[in-house]
Amino acid sequence: MTSKQEEKQYGITVKKNKDFSEWFSQVLIKTDMIDIRYNVQGFIVHKPWSMKIIKEIYKLFERELENSGHEPVLFPLVIPEENFEKEKEHVEGFKPEVFWITEAGDERLERRLALRPTSETAFYSMYSLWVQSWRDLPLKLYQSVSVYRYEKHTRPFIRGREFLWIEAHDVFRSHEEALQQVYEDMRNSKKVIYEKLGIPFIFLKRPQWDKFAGALDTYAADTLMPDGRVLQISSTHDLGQNFAKAFGITFVDQKGEKRYVWQTCYGPGIWRIVAALIAVHGDDRGLVLPFDVAPIQIIIIPIYYTEEDKKNILDKCYNLEKELRDRGFRVKVDAREDRTPGWKFNEWELKGIPLRFEIGKKELEKGIITVFRRDLLKRERISEEKIYEYLKDVPGRIIENLRSRAEKIFKEGIVVVRSREEVIENIKKGKIIKMPFCDKEECAEDMREATEGGKVRGTEIEEERASGLKCAWCGKEAKKWVYVAKSY
Amino acid sequence: MTSKQEEKQYGITVKKNKDFSEWFSQVLIKTDMIDIRYNVQGFIVHKPWSMKIIKEIYKLFERELENSGHEPVLFPLVIPEENFEKEKEHVEGFKPEVFWITEAGDERLERRLALRPTSETAFYSMYSLWVQSWRDLPLKLYQSVSVYRYEKHTRPFIRGREFLWIEAHDVFRSHEEALQQVYEDMRNSKKVIYEKLGIPFIFLKRPQWDKFAGALDTYAADTLMPDGRVLQISSTHDLGQNFAKAFGITFVDQKGEKRYVWQTCYGPGIWRIVAALIAVHGDDRGLVLPFDVAPIQIIIIPIYYTEEDKKNILDKCYNLEKELRDRGFRVKVDAREDRTPGWKFNEWELKGIPLRFEIGKKELEKGIITVFRRDLLKRERISEEKIYEYLKDVPGRIIENLRSRAEKIFKEGIVVVRSREEVIENIKKGKIIKMPFCDKEECAEDMREATEGGKVRGTEIEEERASGLKCAWCGKEAKKWVYVAKSY
Repeated sequence: MTSKQEEKQYGITVKKNKDFSEWFSQVLIKTDMIDIRYNVQGFIVHKPWSMKIIKEIYKLFERELENSGHEPVLFPLVIPEENFEKEKEHVEGFKPEVFWITEAGDERLERRLALRPTSETAFYSMYSLWVQSWRDLPLKLYQSVSVYRYEKHTRPFIRGREFLWIEAHDVFRSHEEALQQVYEDMRNSKKVIYEKLGIPFIFLKRPQWDKFAGALDTYAADTLMPDGRVLQISSTHDLGQNFAKAFGITFVDQKGEKRYVWQTCYGPGIWRIVAALIAVHGDDRGLVLPFDVAPIQIIIIPIYYTEEDKKNILDKCYNLEKELRDRGFRVKVDAREDRTPGWKFNEWELKGIPLRFEIGKKELEKGIITVFRRDLLKRERISEEKIYEYLKDVPGRIIENLRSRAEKIFKEGIVVVRSREEVIENIKKGKIIKMPFCDKEECAEDMREATEGGKVRGTEIEEERASGLKCAWCGKEAKKWVYVAKSY
Repeated sequence: MTSKQEEKQYGITVKKNKDFSEWFSQVLIKTDMIDIRYNVQGFIVHKPWSMKIIKEIYKLFERELENSGHEPVLFPLVIPEENFEKEKEHVEGFKPEVFWITEAGDERLERRLALRPTSETAFYSMYSLWVQSWRDLPLKLYQSVSVYRYEKHTRPFIRGREFLWIEAHDVFRSHEEALQQVYEDMRNSKKVIYEKLGIPFIFLKRPQWDKFAGALDTYAADTLMPDGRVLQISSTHDLGQNFAKAFGITFVDQKGEKRYVWQTCYGPGIWRIVAALIAVHGDDRGLVLPFDVAPIQIIIIPIYYTEEDKKNILDKCYNLEKELRDRGFRVKVDAREDRTPGWKFNEWELKGIPLRFEIGKKELEKGIITVFRRDLLKRERISEEKIYEYLKDVPGRIIENLRSRAEKIFKEGIVVVRSREEVIENIKKGKIIKMPFCDKEECAEDMREATEGGKVRGTEIEEERASGLKCAWCGKEAKKWVYVAKSY
């Protein structure tokens, strides 16, 4: 038996919208998603509660990738320094962050091996062997792996020295096909992140000074965190022919001419999508999980006060559990005897279980189930014979509710501004601002310093011209509408 | 159009039982499972044909592990040298094989970080924090990851510097419970490797001089490869309290006393199971895949000679493909026009697809499908309306056939011997021998040298005493029956 005092300490002790940073840390630890006490900075232990969610998110992306013609591969973790150095901009961008293996057993290795910070230089050294003819194209491969970056400041699921993602590396005959792939990548992001996980975001074309090292153009999805900072959760890059030329990836076209290929790479940031899932849907009681990715979708709580009722109620619970499991639901009866129903309610609400079935004497007598919806914080009574009908619709209703609630907040977070004062005021408030912009890096830099972090995140995919307008920051002639926000 | 000459070169050019080593290499390359040209020794590229099989094998094991109370986690890739050195025997066993990260960005790290060669020392540093009370036990966690060992000689799927496995790390209150876990691990191995994949093996208790570094006892599954060498494909270890003492993993028992835990670890060798799958079931035409793990389970080949027939036959093929896909089968129509049906037959047989549906004019007219079974190399005609009934049973029939065929060979490969001459003769023939043994390491060593590799692999799990018998090798008093074989 636990005291009220203990129950209170067990739960989240801060409000999400008051102190997001502390709230986020408490959710991670109190839901037992991770342990941050492993003794290497920036390397966390993923415990079952996060791993199960992560595995479901991987499944969703892998399905979309395979449906759009990608196939799974696994490339080595290690990249020889010589491969890594072939594309000049790429190596400049990533080298400061690379971990190096230099020794093995008692020996010093002849050359250093990089731990993959991203795998362009691993994949493309092989692509030059695999691609010979137009018949070999398109080539669309992905891998689901951890990557390694020597980051100075780390935060679980937001910035790590080891983090989880997917990387897809695609090769085409023409630039046009490559650009079509960028659109497909954006559609796949939308299908999973927005439709299945209910996280709203905006896909932006990053400014040239903020693109992926080695790319022609970078397109990235930003979502808005509750502290008013945006988080990049997915990105896709038009690599042009930069890597093709560095690695000698050519094909003989239908006319018999040898040409360089066109490439894209796509990186759904699984780790950051978990961060967004927690942050966007969570509330002051803890996690709120969409039905599709919840490790337990339905928790069944037996409620009884006499030994007489106990057997009947537990029987009912276990029968229901079996039936639900047979139909493919992830379900569990919490029959612990050293915890009160109230304690259990709190614990499973904290952990974000979408549905709670409460089954007591009254339910048994009336042939009903009391269902608690985590997203609505509301109970409803469903008659037993209608429960499967109810369960057919409710996962969709939950995600629609989560999505529309999140979308409302996201849309309110975007403000159109025209003046320097409005920029300062709204960046301070934690808004994403949309403003006419001169398109000069110096102006962006000045604005970033003055607003303590308001960064130009880019334009919409089809750049919106701002003819005749003045840059909201410097007042000179504006070229395009851009989005500006503080970011992680 | 391709010539007969080309078709021939495309296929496997040696017999599996004549030159297994060359056969194995040709299968890996010609089925496009892997590429060995990545420029770091012992690190291979897993191409889609192997990755898809590997993902299915992972699913099978993860299901059994979860059904037996394990949960997924992910621990860091890197292990600080200080953790790694805590268990004396363990570090002595693994240190010569460890890759070390020593640099990051432009900096030299303060301490070296090991790439996990196995993760006892990562897991158990946290287990000492997680386990406090008897209520925390049992603790049963697993991760599906790559591990890294600086091996001198490497061979794809058999011995690599990077290879894929699962590792499960379990903690108990008593030695008895830990030993029960060893049995559960063996049952799970049997369920997947033997029942689902049809690979016969024998679980042996390894001799003390050949156990896992840091364990009390090692139990390992050996299968027999076509060249007469055994391959260890799975192992489970009774760790006793060795790591508990090294890492300070204690719990307060129900009487309030603090005690050290008992531990086991289990490692299904996913990579080596792939090697065994290829080697045990494959034939002179190439791979033979069980239905459950085949990336494509049914390949549909349209056969037509006139433009008139083409449309009807292709329509039929695509309709069937859709129907089969809707029912959950992995199926593909091979409608390539620049390949003859014969070429396609060869290619998909090489790749091991369990079923081929041939659909031509005759099939259309008669309302039948000509089905080719890869495992039997036989055609049968199934009437269209019976195809789903056929497909309900055939996966089971395929695996039963593969298993019983493999088991016959495996059983014939085991010979009971009593004399030195018989030992020498049968080890030379590539048999697993069972013999009475004195249980002396020096005798085992002498036998290994004299037989050019015949190693004592261990006893059956319940050691079989050999009272009154003489050691088949040295002639002194025998203690137990052991199995001896050349090994990978």
